[in-house]
Amino acid sequence: MDLKKFIRDIPDFPKPGIIFKDLTPLLKDRDAFATAIDHLARHYQGTRLTAIAGIESRGFIIGSALALTLRTGFLPLRKPGKLPYKTIRQEYSLEYGTDAIEIHQDAIAPGDRILLVDDLLATGGTARAGAELIRRLGGELAGIAFLIELAFLKGRERLAGEQVFSLLTF
Amino acid sequence: MDLKKFIRDIPDFPKPGIIFKDLTPLLKDRDAFATAIDHLARHYQGTRLTAIAGIESRGFIIGSALALTLRTGFLPLRKPGKLPYKTIRQEYSLEYGTDAIEIHQDAIAPGDRILLVDDLLATGGTARAGAELIRRLGGELAGIAFLIELAFLKGRERLAGEQVFSLLTF
Repeated sequence: MDLKKFIRDIPDFPKPGIIFKDLTPLLKDRDAFATAIDHLARHYQGTRLTAIAGIESRGFIIGSALALTLRTGFLPLRKPGKLPYKTIRQEYSLEYGTDAIEIHQDAIAPGDRILLVDDLLATGGTARAGAELIRRLGGELAGIAFLIELAFLKGRERLAGEQVFSLLTF
Repeated sequence: MDLKKFIRDIPDFPKPGIIFKDLTPLLKDRDAFATAIDHLARHYQGTRLTAIAGIESRGFIIGSALALTLRTGFLPLRKPGKLPYKTIRQEYSLEYGTDAIEIHQDAIAPGDRILLVDDLLATGGTARAGAELIRRLGGELAGIAFLIELAFLKGRERLAGEQVFSLLTF
């Protein structure tokens, strides 16, 4: 099954000059969706994992389905102010300015093995911040998984030293 | 398994006087998470469904895992401006002011049977708007499912006429 056929290019989104990779056609197709999650799950079969941490919002879609398949817990990493309990925050730089993500302080116990999941690897800034959050809570980062990687943005360089896996590379 | 034990009360979130139902302890526990999704899935076993529509953001977590379990597609309903392709929008009233959600115009074909999913039924405004979006695209609404229902907010009344199912009622 050629999963790349289900990824749609949207020119000039979210701003002029950017070609956005839209994964909603893949999610909408039950066979493509199940196949994508199955391929990701196979990659981590046999890996000891406590939980999957998904990055808001599209990382929730991939991460939750993967957590259920691998029979792990699921931890949401969210934009500032969205998580209701005590949190820690990690900032990261964007092209212009900074952004941040948060995790609940009790999401991870020391020694937990966490797989970080997002839909897309672009410059790697958000994933780098997610990895920091996991380690700051004493978690062991088992790897970082993406459905899509935009290789020309060299996000893997920013994630050097991590076990990065992406299903579809453009 | 008493799933209610995994729902945590957070006082004064997101604002003073509100007691927020935090489901992250349930998501974090792999058995509780799998049990919750399994219970939801059993309720719809045998129902003809084309796709599950999940409402951003926590509805993505429940909806995606449920879609994989029931082997349907998954459709994201998102805050305005987040979906990259052509959308339609539905506004709904809040205590003060209005908010809106959007769906891709090509998410649903006439005759598709859609299950709408969110984490929590409070006043029912968001779910009502989601139901409208599904019908405006020619979809048939098979039901609306929630992990948690806050019965004292009477959201079911706002969803009168719909097939509403919630797993945990407070």
